[in-house]
Amino acid sequence: MHAEIISVGTELLLGHTVDTNAAYLGKILSSLGIDVYYRATVGDNAERLAETLRAALSRADLVITIGGLGPTMDDLTKETIAHVLGERMVSDPDSERAIREFFERRGIEPVASNLKQALRPESGVALPNRVGTAPGVIVEKDDKIVIALPGPPGELIPMVVDSVVPYLDQKTSGKHRSVIESRVLKVVGIGESAAEDKVRDLLTSENPTIAPYAKGGEVHFRITAKAPNRQAALAMISDLEAKARERLGDYVFGIDEDTLESVVVRLLVERGLKLAFAESCTGGLVSNRVTDVPGASETFQGGVVAYANDVKSGMLGVPAEIIARHGAVSPEVAEAMANGAAERLGADIAVGITGIAGPTGGTPEKPVGLVYIALKTPESVSVTRNVFGGSRTEIKMRASHVALNMVRMYLLNIGR
Amino acid sequence: MHAEIISVGTELLLGHTVDTNAAYLGKILSSLGIDVYYRATVGDNAERLAETLRAALSRADLVITIGGLGPTMDDLTKETIAHVLGERMVSDPDSERAIREFFERRGIEPVASNLKQALRPESGVALPNRVGTAPGVIVEKDDKIVIALPGPPGELIPMVVDSVVPYLDQKTSGKHRSVIESRVLKVVGIGESAAEDKVRDLLTSENPTIAPYAKGGEVHFRITAKAPNRQAALAMISDLEAKARERLGDYVFGIDEDTLESVVVRLLVERGLKLAFAESCTGGLVSNRVTDVPGASETFQGGVVAYANDVKSGMLGVPAEIIARHGAVSPEVAEAMANGAAERLGADIAVGITGIAGPTGGTPEKPVGLVYIALKTPESVSVTRNVFGGSRTEIKMRASHVALNMVRMYLLNIGR
Repeated sequence: MHAEIISVGTELLLGHTVDTNAAYLGKILSSLGIDVYYRATVGDNAERLAETLRAALSRADLVITIGGLGPTMDDLTKETIAHVLGERMVSDPDSERAIREFFERRGIEPVASNLKQALRPESGVALPNRVGTAPGVIVEKDDKIVIALPGPPGELIPMVVDSVVPYLDQKTSGKHRSVIESRVLKVVGIGESAAEDKVRDLLTSENPTIAPYAKGGEVHFRITAKAPNRQAALAMISDLEAKARERLGDYVFGIDEDTLESVVVRLLVERGLKLAFAESCTGGLVSNRVTDVPGASETFQGGVVAYANDVKSGMLGVPAEIIARHGAVSPEVAEAMANGAAERLGADIAVGITGIAGPTGGTPEKPVGLVYIALKTPESVSVTRNVFGGSRTEIKMRASHVALNMVRMYLLNIGR
Repeated sequence: MHAEIISVGTELLLGHTVDTNAAYLGKILSSLGIDVYYRATVGDNAERLAETLRAALSRADLVITIGGLGPTMDDLTKETIAHVLGERMVSDPDSERAIREFFERRGIEPVASNLKQALRPESGVALPNRVGTAPGVIVEKDDKIVIALPGPPGELIPMVVDSVVPYLDQKTSGKHRSVIESRVLKVVGIGESAAEDKVRDLLTSENPTIAPYAKGGEVHFRITAKAPNRQAALAMISDLEAKARERLGDYVFGIDEDTLESVVVRLLVERGLKLAFAESCTGGLVSNRVTDVPGASETFQGGVVAYANDVKSGMLGVPAEIIARHGAVSPEVAEAMANGAAERLGADIAVGITGIAGPTGGTPEKPVGLVYIALKTPESVSVTRNVFGGSRTEIKMRASHVALNMVRMYLLNIGR
């Protein structure tokens, strides 16, 4: 079964509303094994909606519209569906009763525009709305299915869960039922092209597929399999995942909901080690990421955000003469910050970060994006020199990735 | 001029990514007086993209594509545009140089797939990408314009601002009939319903309109005006904004791109005061927010993320007996943290934050979400008790809002 989604609303075209409904429906349909090849957005305009509906019905078995079910004059979706399918509009008795009851509970008399919401194409079936006054509708005609859903996510989601999923599940079960499952393999410390090069021959696989995309300084590989049932799809994914992991090695840090910080916290807790940070240009971002992980307090002692030089000296014991001689952005200061954090915060592992996040403050020798990151472990201290591109917040984010990944790589190699 | 937007990416259809770019472009185009009647989303499939492009070009003067400019095999947008327009692909010398320099700065050799990104349709003009390696392109042909932009918002937005807006502004000048402008008035420290109550009579205004929405613990009011020209629209907005500000008073912290942290930094710099934080449950989030603001180093000394109790004592001088008597989550400890941060980090104003971010660690007396926030100023120390709802990261975010807003309210009242 192929589906298309049509979102209706001028506010979407104007960009006043971001269309989260279409993404939600995309996930639901793929979990039911229904392919979506096209999605469209049109304004509150009957003619353009009709044209878009006709184009969608010429290609797809199922068309789902979102929005335009309200009481106002520019809510035209159901009328337009009826027009395109050659149907009359009739009042749905259950919907009318529900709308009257909705207003009665609030002590208000419904006006004519409210009762317009009870109308539906004559061969359609109304879908109850347990949150608002706009019922949805399913119309089956000439081997095509059209489903109209309300626009507010708070009304759409319950209607999808209550009515649409059971309906589609029943429609697709049986002969041509198939399920799509996917898993995201997450990679850090390597660029998108270089990561792709390592798995290039796998990229032509058609089922399961594997597709790379860059996301916030990481590279994610989405592995997607289509199979008659969930187990078969998951087995296909695991096969391809194993091959990809073999090529990508330690660059792989996790899957799906794993974050770099959750993996670092898990490894630290497993190894019984305590962590601390001394951050200058990242300004608390690395500490913030680690403390987003539930249970971080088991391993995370704390950190110092040493923005001013006198804080680097006073709170972390970085000798003022090192700052004077090498500059605050230098491998020597990064190392002294890491050492100071480990000692003063009572940590086994500490990271010191100093750099220039910009947009100003760069020089030819020390450009914006230059960041030194020192890792202090019980055995040694090492410092990396990095030059990151992007905006101030992107430079901070990239530096935080490298810092957390240095900790992760150290922890992985313990006992190898 | 009529435009259509085509978003390209299987991850959009599957719902793994929400399309914020299309909304952003919708706003930009409407501010230029360019109407958007249709928007489409297709996957990484050349045939379906070509079909969608042809349909869009048959209706619109301008078609903007988003995404599919990356180095990988499934990035097909520029090639498909060339195919539909009957153009050859050529390497753009400036783009090729920029890509080589991008990798040189990082000390990496570009691979062939990176240099593929320098290709463009032969009659096109490349748009520089100052963040990543994917240049955009503008092609003018047969009275139609096609613009291809990269998918990551961090790359798309700078390219739109640097290249697309000036180009379209020049193309449309003198031709557009009406312009839509909008401004967002940002409010913090009051709930959505209470804020809405204060401006209820303004909400029925039809042009300009004002519409509230909750966003990340803040309430935003979008004021939108339609007028024959930009000045007239802005004057209408300013009128309504003044009325709304009169009702909302100090709850208003800024407009448009203002953030709570950027406003706090500006007020501190204006008053010549130094800031420091002592964070427990927020884990560095407040410091991170402040250091996202360019120029924060003029006022921000630094902070201590005091997660472990011995860090609260050792680094901030919180007496161990206060922790033992009142518990780490107590007004007394919040106050001692703020005092310690002000003294040890050399700040005029310091905030101490201690609480329970959850999901575990709550008790009937001290539930998850309980957060004490102390504000130390040159004159005094005050402590607020807050109970926030939501997930761990939401509790952290809400606590950071209250902390920054306490600083803002203090600074506003200086010299009143």
